[in-house]
Amino acid sequence: MNLLSRLSRVRKRIAAADLDALLISYLPNVRYLSGFDGSSANLIITKDQLYFITDFRYITVVESLFANTSDLDFTLVTVDLSYDETIGDTLLGLGVKRIGVEGAHFTMRQYSWLRDFLGAASKKTNSVCLVPTERIIESVRLCKDSYEIELMRTAAAKLSEVALEVLPKVSLGRSERDVAAEVDWTIHRMGFERTAFETIVASGPNSALPHARPSERVLSPGDLVVLDFGGVHDGYCVDMTRTVCLGIPDTRAKKIYEAVLEAQAAAISAIAVGVSVCNIDEAARDSLKRHGLADAFGHGTGHGLGLEVHEEPRISRRRPQEKISHSVETLVKAGMVFTIEPGVYIPNFGGVRIEDDLLVTPNGYEVLTQVPYEFVSA
Amino acid sequence: MNLLSRLSRVRKRIAAADLDALLISYLPNVRYLSGFDGSSANLIITKDQLYFITDFRYITVVESLFANTSDLDFTLVTVDLSYDETIGDTLLGLGVKRIGVEGAHFTMRQYSWLRDFLGAASKKTNSVCLVPTERIIESVRLCKDSYEIELMRTAAAKLSEVALEVLPKVSLGRSERDVAAEVDWTIHRMGFERTAFETIVASGPNSALPHARPSERVLSPGDLVVLDFGGVHDGYCVDMTRTVCLGIPDTRAKKIYEAVLEAQAAAISAIAVGVSVCNIDEAARDSLKRHGLADAFGHGTGHGLGLEVHEEPRISRRRPQEKISHSVETLVKAGMVFTIEPGVYIPNFGGVRIEDDLLVTPNGYEVLTQVPYEFVSA
Repeated sequence: MNLLSRLSRVRKRIAAADLDALLISYLPNVRYLSGFDGSSANLIITKDQLYFITDFRYITVVESLFANTSDLDFTLVTVDLSYDETIGDTLLGLGVKRIGVEGAHFTMRQYSWLRDFLGAASKKTNSVCLVPTERIIESVRLCKDSYEIELMRTAAAKLSEVALEVLPKVSLGRSERDVAAEVDWTIHRMGFERTAFETIVASGPNSALPHARPSERVLSPGDLVVLDFGGVHDGYCVDMTRTVCLGIPDTRAKKIYEAVLEAQAAAISAIAVGVSVCNIDEAARDSLKRHGLADAFGHGTGHGLGLEVHEEPRISRRRPQEKISHSVETLVKAGMVFTIEPGVYIPNFGGVRIEDDLLVTPNGYEVLTQVPYEFVSA
Repeated sequence: MNLLSRLSRVRKRIAAADLDALLISYLPNVRYLSGFDGSSANLIITKDQLYFITDFRYITVVESLFANTSDLDFTLVTVDLSYDETIGDTLLGLGVKRIGVEGAHFTMRQYSWLRDFLGAASKKTNSVCLVPTERIIESVRLCKDSYEIELMRTAAAKLSEVALEVLPKVSLGRSERDVAAEVDWTIHRMGFERTAFETIVASGPNSALPHARPSERVLSPGDLVVLDFGGVHDGYCVDMTRTVCLGIPDTRAKKIYEAVLEAQAAAISAIAVGVSVCNIDEAARDSLKRHGLADAFGHGTGHGLGLEVHEEPRISRRRPQEKISHSVETLVKAGMVFTIEPGVYIPNFGGVRIEDDLLVTPNGYEVLTQVPYEFVSA
């Protein structure tokens, strides 16, 4: 993992925002800049220093993470009573003036506490200013570096093996929960450190709920069964969905399946460096519209993958310009990794979703998950 | 689940804070006040109305949740383009002035966006005010109601069965990861909807890391093995830890084990309605001090359980008064459910942690997890 290169890209953005320091409290961002995978830590990044703030549980781990990085000016700070105070004390010790915090993650409570703490300590000069920032680390994370791409290729290959192993076992008489437990078990056996999210096995009418939870419902003849599952490999998430039909599908189910498959292909074909991610979404939506199914597709076409199972870019509908609340349209860049997962959901009938993970390459894309589309199960 | 009673307790606090409405964005709090267990929803509570804001995925689910609650003035609001805008529009439609947000969960980004949105819409009057609040729902969740207590009793009994099943299978030659996968599988088979956190199986020197992740390390003779695992039952989390020794423990390991067991008993004995939770922590710490092990116990003695696996109360060290950043000492009340889990961690040697879940009763406590303490494994 090339921490120095990541740090240097972050530092450019810190300088551009005219900040003296950036406090990073969001764990996936901390992990991105350190490899740390524990549950509590904060980073403070300045022009030339890096402070890692954690509690006694993780001292040993952090020391080993940074053991071979003598080129970083790195300081490990151990929390005594509270993270808040240790962070405050560290910032005071730095004597910095404009301190960035992560606007999308820093809470009102953290903000007002830190502002008051720094204000009380530097009353006379009143010189410390907390600045909410947007997407400083996220914008760097948006395009994966070669280390990350290799990890995600491996992870997607493993997840494909999981699919190949479990799909034949989706069979009549088993409950959704039973199948989900087998998926989870297979994910573990395949060497993933954990599932990336709660596995979805949604059958029959439940398949019409995009985020159904596995229930005791028993798989029955003619059921549409949506299986959506993911794994975490060395911190990186991959995620895929297949829908199968148990026994002979009725005409409607078959038509829906084919329409979703076509929509996925249309979206994938739309991937190209420089286009707006909204065009990819539009391709899937237009394709479904031609089958009269646009209204049955309520979610976005995909989401970024990486240290989080849902991260940037969001492959979603174009928003009316005047209503955009936080972001402008993202353009596709080489190194992005995201899912393409159109779906159609008909209440009380059933649903179909098909999802794969893709890496954007300079000249197109690479499909990372490789599992045949087989609709009819034994 | 008695939603009306929970809501009425929340409304008293809303009135006491002189708010016209409270926006609830933190999912465990949304769930507490609705039963909703999806991944996206917000609530707006006023003196006499309840607005439930969610997207198309959850409409069916939410309608069924509130199907039998005609005594609530309940409105389901469906998100179109973004939660932010739907929340903003709903608040504007209410014509309220002082709107509480959850300070510990609402981010700087959400706050500034909503403030600007409401400000722009009501420019002329400039009458809308966003007020960060603290612990409004959390203070109600602190003591479990009878519905929750019943669920947590059942969950803890199931988790005890998990322990009884897996502890005999901790054996020489298996890897930590293998044992962890079996624990997870057993948690699923026992009917839990998911594990409450990533299962810890930490052996030999790894047991000295309180939050070790299961590795490929193979269990070896004389190893201390810490198993820390939990399950979620109908949304409620339970959590327990046992430490076993593989084969004949050496004298030091045995002494540590006995000291931790004694510290746990001391902490449990200190539980009584009206005492500070810090006294419970102190009892464990004093007990370890008598064995010269106080410095090897770096974390808190316990944490609350409920819809979250770590919630209030925190059973931790008393803080110097002048340094308290957010909270005052919590007093023990009947209906609280928390863990008691002292531990001793000796770097490069090993560690011991023993954890059970307790319910505070009017006259004392009830130990919810019931698993014998057996140190030496086959």
